[in-house]
Amino acid sequence: MDNTISQRLGLLRETMTSDGLDAFIVPRADEYLGEYVPPQNERLQWVSGFTGSAGMVILMQESAAIFVDGRYTIQARQQVPSACYSFHHLIEEPPIIWLGDALSSRGTGKYRVGLDSRLHSLAWFERSKKILGEQGIALVELAENPIDLQWSDRPKPETRPVILLGENYTGEDSESKRHRIASAIKATGADLALITQLDSIAWLLNIRGADIPRLPVLLAFATLSAEGEMLLYTNPEKLPGNFAQHVGKKVSVRDASQLSQALNALGRQGKQVLADPMTANAWCQLRCQEAGCKLIAGTDPVLVPKAQKNDTELLGMRNCHIRDGSAVTRYLAWIEREVEAGRMHHEGELADQLELFRRDLSDIHDLSFDTISAVGANGALCHYNHKNGEPKMLELDNLYLVDSGGQYSDGTTDITRTVIIGMPDPAHIRFFTLVLKGHIALARSVFPKGTYGVQLDALARQFLWQEGFDYDHGTGHGVGTFLCVHEGPQQISKSGTQEPLMPGMVVSNEPGYYQEDCFGIRCENLMAVTERDDGMLQFETITLAPFDLRLIDTELMTGEEADWLNNYHTEVREKLSPLLRSEDLEWLKLSTQPLLRISSI
Amino acid sequence: MDNTISQRLGLLRETMTSDGLDAFIVPRADEYLGEYVPPQNERLQWVSGFTGSAGMVILMQESAAIFVDGRYTIQARQQVPSACYSFHHLIEEPPIIWLGDALSSRGTGKYRVGLDSRLHSLAWFERSKKILGEQGIALVELAENPIDLQWSDRPKPETRPVILLGENYTGEDSESKRHRIASAIKATGADLALITQLDSIAWLLNIRGADIPRLPVLLAFATLSAEGEMLLYTNPEKLPGNFAQHVGKKVSVRDASQLSQALNALGRQGKQVLADPMTANAWCQLRCQEAGCKLIAGTDPVLVPKAQKNDTELLGMRNCHIRDGSAVTRYLAWIEREVEAGRMHHEGELADQLELFRRDLSDIHDLSFDTISAVGANGALCHYNHKNGEPKMLELDNLYLVDSGGQYSDGTTDITRTVIIGMPDPAHIRFFTLVLKGHIALARSVFPKGTYGVQLDALARQFLWQEGFDYDHGTGHGVGTFLCVHEGPQQISKSGTQEPLMPGMVVSNEPGYYQEDCFGIRCENLMAVTERDDGMLQFETITLAPFDLRLIDTELMTGEEADWLNNYHTEVREKLSPLLRSEDLEWLKLSTQPLLRISSI
Repeated sequence: MDNTISQRLGLLRETMTSDGLDAFIVPRADEYLGEYVPPQNERLQWVSGFTGSAGMVILMQESAAIFVDGRYTIQARQQVPSACYSFHHLIEEPPIIWLGDALSSRGTGKYRVGLDSRLHSLAWFERSKKILGEQGIALVELAENPIDLQWSDRPKPETRPVILLGENYTGEDSESKRHRIASAIKATGADLALITQLDSIAWLLNIRGADIPRLPVLLAFATLSAEGEMLLYTNPEKLPGNFAQHVGKKVSVRDASQLSQALNALGRQGKQVLADPMTANAWCQLRCQEAGCKLIAGTDPVLVPKAQKNDTELLGMRNCHIRDGSAVTRYLAWIEREVEAGRMHHEGELADQLELFRRDLSDIHDLSFDTISAVGANGALCHYNHKNGEPKMLELDNLYLVDSGGQYSDGTTDITRTVIIGMPDPAHIRFFTLVLKGHIALARSVFPKGTYGVQLDALARQFLWQEGFDYDHGTGHGVGTFLCVHEGPQQISKSGTQEPLMPGMVVSNEPGYYQEDCFGIRCENLMAVTERDDGMLQFETITLAPFDLRLIDTELMTGEEADWLNNYHTEVREKLSPLLRSEDLEWLKLSTQPLLRISSI
Repeated sequence: MDNTISQRLGLLRETMTSDGLDAFIVPRADEYLGEYVPPQNERLQWVSGFTGSAGMVILMQESAAIFVDGRYTIQARQQVPSACYSFHHLIEEPPIIWLGDALSSRGTGKYRVGLDSRLHSLAWFERSKKILGEQGIALVELAENPIDLQWSDRPKPETRPVILLGENYTGEDSESKRHRIASAIKATGADLALITQLDSIAWLLNIRGADIPRLPVLLAFATLSAEGEMLLYTNPEKLPGNFAQHVGKKVSVRDASQLSQALNALGRQGKQVLADPMTANAWCQLRCQEAGCKLIAGTDPVLVPKAQKNDTELLGMRNCHIRDGSAVTRYLAWIEREVEAGRMHHEGELADQLELFRRDLSDIHDLSFDTISAVGANGALCHYNHKNGEPKMLELDNLYLVDSGGQYSDGTTDITRTVIIGMPDPAHIRFFTLVLKGHIALARSVFPKGTYGVQLDALARQFLWQEGFDYDHGTGHGVGTFLCVHEGPQQISKSGTQEPLMPGMVVSNEPGYYQEDCFGIRCENLMAVTERDDGMLQFETITLAPFDLRLIDTELMTGEEADWLNNYHTEVREKLSPLLRSEDLEWLKLSTQPLLRISSI
């Protein structure tokens, strides 16, 4: 592999020479700038071997540097040949600052840095251009990506057709959605908007694709006019014959190759174009601008409407969580029987078994992300992947953490359970209980309209904070319906936007605690924001699976917390029992027994 | 009075004619842009009769408009002659937008709006200039304030000398403070900073003044260079003979009248000047800029160091809170005896009696703000002032709310207690308990470094939120030491800056509940941020006075909450007993009895 990487770098360096470049930047993103990237767009992996979800390579003639964040420092050193690369921290050593310093240290000169502007947001591009520009370094847009020119065995793109989602799943037809969004575009003064986020396009058209693992979207680019005219640039072969009928009037399909021309035409007409400089790639906005468009910077107008699920979508989310919960429950029951029988599986076998239980369910399309199946100390690595290295066997008297989810026709799930294998020690019980108390405090919270996630985050952390502990990740992220398992704008975290939590939004509740080299704990359910009769907002927990009662110190629980857990477990039992049989059903009953009833005072 | 106001408007309109102005803007602020204004600078009151703490007048030839916020709509109509003025909402109808519309509606023309740029921040001035400019309206700086030219019986400025505060109060001499701040100025790249906030100047020089009621500062303006040279522009007669010795080297005093020349000189030298466009007046920054300075916009470099009290200051704060608590306790005991004896005083008599108890204490200089003494429904008006209208008599079987504080040589206090006069009804008890539970949750909170107030605010609101209620003000504001009772940057509220809470900061904890036309509840203590051995931060409550036990529903309290209250009341009793005698001491013992001990589970 080292040889392959080295050869690839050699090829790229040749094109750099002919292009007169001193450096070439390779990000992990593709032109859609999403979290998931299809295999044919894994350029960072091709150039470095690194398979993590975030990172950047800067290639120069004499050297190459890879930048990854704290999650991936170990993995990068395992995957990326150190003969070819130096290793850097993506946050502590921002690549563009590093590059500016590296080039400047060579003395004055007319340095040129090349990149593919399709793979960067406009906001990032302009910031980087300014930083480098102040040091006299030019940031050059390359007409073609040099990797694409050299990548001989590049995977073929997926060709499976999209699924057309009926109103029984979406609750609103595509025409109505486009009409709503067009009005929002009109209100900004724009003539049209660039709709560049793949889940926004899928939501608008009520379609789901198979182009990317884990994310059911179609690779496409779209514009929507203030009058509701939508142009979709994609591979038309993936659209079934009844697509036109499904989406209704005012949608035209163009081959993806026509996008460049189309942006030019917009410019000639002097259109005012709404685009999100944080999420739309620099290339499309720069082409619009050059052609004569006026860019209006604004948030993707689909973002908030998509996040507010309607009643049909919420019903779908509840339903898929019942099925998903039955698979997780079968899995947890199965693990316990396997351990009792002395069969200690490794993390990979465990994840595969959970996937089998899920694949048994109706309307499953895919997992919603790669399962985190982490034994003991591996659970303390928040983004652990058992496929990077030797998967660990289950360990007696230690914790097992499993974070997983599915993509169903009626919704998306994301659940983490932490269970004890064998006997818990006092630290397992103490920290699990503190994490669970935080989970319950957030789940029980009630708040007025206008409240945003930062205001609620401490509810989940307060009990850990009291004892001097914390966790180094957010408490909650938004989740789509049969769409992206991470969606905005809603989030619950220490900092972030003041986007209010609104009825219909779905958000995770996942406090945790991580003791390095020992164990990890996370308790994660999804919750829907609902409105009470008095106008206050609250959370409805929709994930259904038992929390491990063996890990709870009832002495640390208040009566209200115990009541919440008992009610939750009753609901889990009532909703999952019809889907379970024999020993799984017995296990569920045992695992959802009430905690000893405690008087509130 | 109506006649007087009308005559004054007539005089101003004459000067407007000779200056060629279509409108003249009068804010409440003076050139120091602080919350408190000395009588000789109460220009808004002179022009309108309005005595509230915020507002704006726009005077035109044919009409005059006054803008006040929701706190003052009733008061403004009582104080301002409606024959002369139209009334507007300061927030809902922003004055500059209103003015632009009013002038534009007259048709095109070259309109000129005059103001005294000393009375507005640069940020406000530039925003207003832009808004009006887009409508072709010129915003004109007047060389002299027309009100000052017409105000014949203007009060004389205070001439009492400043107090020099020794290191036993400040914990750090002025030279050391100036050295620290000079380094911070240097780090911004500036040659010097404009120090324009009066409490910043007082803190830097370890002096306190008597120029403004309730705020112990000297009216002055200062510059501090990156090398530590300080120039103080003020009335030198207020500085005692040993001032120079007190402040040490590198402080020069100039008469306030020399400021304009001095700013000009800075410009000739091409200085880079750090100034805070949000808190420094437009006039001083515009003069610097015109003269040739480069302005660097940044926060007042004194703000954060001043907010982080050192050990000596914290000790002083604790000590003055013991004395202050004894006065509040004597007062609460006295009220109860008076009510028992059938003597129902009115709000003004009550506030006066509380002031008498405070004036009895050692080292008291002033109150820290006008006492809010509010019977029954008046308590629901958050900024109630019994001096505007007929003060109300104590009401049997209703609540009495008193929010008050003192300025002492060793610190500043701010405390609110709500007590029942006669017998409470269930609503009084329910809401008082919900408010107190929120107060306790915030007081007990522990949080990591870097946490800011927005993250903690919900802890104080959570119990009200659960029941569908809230309060429409922040939960906590910063407090100075023998300085401003409202100081930044720390605050605890629904939104605001991400300025972290840091050890030594003092912040109020004052959740409330207001039932319109019935009663108001607020429970307010001050708390210091302290660091635990494990590096986590927590609050140390420093205010000492009993909460009304008759208003607590123990059924709604958890064991931990009851423990907190019992411990607090034990501390109150132990620290205040030595300062109280006979029936007051008896009352304290009764009022700090433990709640029935409740097991936590």
